[in-house]
Amino acid sequence: MAEYRFSTELKVRFSETDAQGVAHHAAYFDWLEIARIEYLARFEGGYPALRAQGIDATTLEAYVRYLAPARFDDLLVVQARCGDLRGARFRFDYAIECDAERVAEGWTTHACVDSRTLRPTRLPAWLKKAMATAES
Amino acid sequence: MAEYRFSTELKVRFSETDAQGVAHHAAYFDWLEIARIEYLARFEGGYPALRAQGIDATTLEAYVRYLAPARFDDLLVVQARCGDLRGARFRFDYAIECDAERVAEGWTTHACVDSRTLRPTRLPAWLKKAMATAES
Amino acid sequence: MAEYRFSTELKVRFSETDAQGVAHHAAYFDWLEIARIEYLARFEGGYPALRAQGIDATTLEAYVRYLAPARFDDLLVVQARCGDLRGARFRFDYAIECDAERVAEGWTTHACVDSRTLRPTRLPAWLKKAMATAES
Amino acid sequence: MAEYRFSTELKVRFSETDAQGVAHHAAYFDWLEIARIEYLARFEGGYPALRAQGIDATTLEAYVRYLAPARFDDLLVVQARCGDLRGARFRFDYAIECDAERVAEGWTTHACVDSRTLRPTRLPAWLKKAMATAES
Repeated sequence: MAEYRFSTELKVRFSETDAQGVAHHAAYFDWLEIARIEYLARFEGGYPALRAQGIDATTLEAYVRYLAPARFDDLLVVQARCGDLRGARFRFDYAIECDAERVAEGWTTHACVDSRTLRPTRLPAWLKKAMATAES
Repeated sequence: MAEYRFSTELKVRFSETDAQGVAHHAAYFDWLEIARIEYLARFEGGYPALRAQGIDATTLEAYVRYLAPARFDDLLVVQARCGDLRGARFRFDYAIECDAERVAEGWTTHACVDSRTLRPTRLPAWLKKAMATAES
Repeated sequence: MAEYRFSTELKVRFSETDAQGVAHHAAYFDWLEIARIEYLARFEGGYPALRAQGIDATTLEAYVRYLAPARFDDLLVVQARCGDLRGARFRFDYAIECDAERVAEGWTTHACVDSRTLRPTRLPAWLKKAMATAES
Repeated sequence: MAEYRFSTELKVRFSETDAQGVAHHAAYFDWLEIARIEYLARFEGGYPALRAQGIDATTLEAYVRYLAPARFDDLLVVQARCGDLRGARFRFDYAIECDAERVAEGWTTHACVDSRTLRPTRLPAWLKKAMATAES
């Protein structure tokens, strides 16, 4: 399986914990989004640039597998890679680690859409090329 | 002090709790917003209608005083009243109760703005009148 | 495929929307949790009762497939059913509808754990029986 | 008025935006909490250390004044200072800036409590001293 060449760090916020004393399971999806946006930010302005060009990305599916609890103030490393680029669709895979232990893994699938019509549109060529290069 | 003539109910969600075992203090501001929207919903379509008319409401200030913890699954009664309507500005006052005990109180101030320009605009006359009637 | 015999309703909160103008994809996981808790609430006190008995449920996996956007103030019907009960593990399936259109579907898997040790423990017999009856 | 000697940075998350296209007003309270925790983290382990010692801090009041919208991906500087330490109570003041423009300001008040009894307890002397030094 392909390795991760990109990662970003974040700390578990107190507001992300729940009454079980650990990070709430829905918070992980915010973290994946943060990693996705940071991943894209390396390419010509990333997601904000895409949006400025009238292209938006919608989430089609989201999945997380929880392996170990994450706690308040834990420093997490969120690894991400992008692949499976076909026309308007793409997929991100993720692994979340804390102290070198994998605490969760997941994936999300997305489609590019025209911001106004919300109809599927191709990923801009420059971004497709940049992402392919990043993962090769 | 004026009494509350409007209230709405909600249950504390598990996702709103934190590692102290109680509802996180930021969640209360979502609850005030829910009460505010439900309050306005009684008048000709309420907030969605306002937005459809190209008017939006922004929050200028928000304040909560926490009196007792709210816990997961607690049924809360959020009381709200609107007043101090002056041109583009208005204020909501709130009290949150659980089992007839006051657990929090707060207030928010707002301004009406044009959705496109984000410049201040007057509250529509119909809404101003309806709200004044509701509180008289 | 088995039909849904349980559903609960909720309205999309303004705080759950994002700058795309629709409900943020992570909010759906809160909604599934609400349905899960309401589902369990029909049986002898449900999730709060479980927690009072020193048993907690952790989420092992969570998945959502997004079919159509949900918007602010949309009234959603979240259908849920529970199955695949094996010892400490169980699975919920969900479908979210708005105006009779399916806007999302998903599933979550869970394990019962001892609240103190966080070690796997069996689902209480009364709950297992109640849930099996509900779905038969 | 006293100047701010402490600040921390954060980026507006996409999940923190709402359908008005700007950061939701409740998100600011999470940001104040992040600044508060980072502020305390400079002193002997900070908030996690306090909690480990059986002391917790509860929020008594929270207030924000919104001056200009914060948008997705904006880099915010959250300034914080602590003062008004009297026994079990203390207060934080905050200013949030984006590109050197003040976008919000606020304050919160807190009480130290025993984690088990939730009764008021004094701020540990070491922390009180450290905080006084930091602001003198």
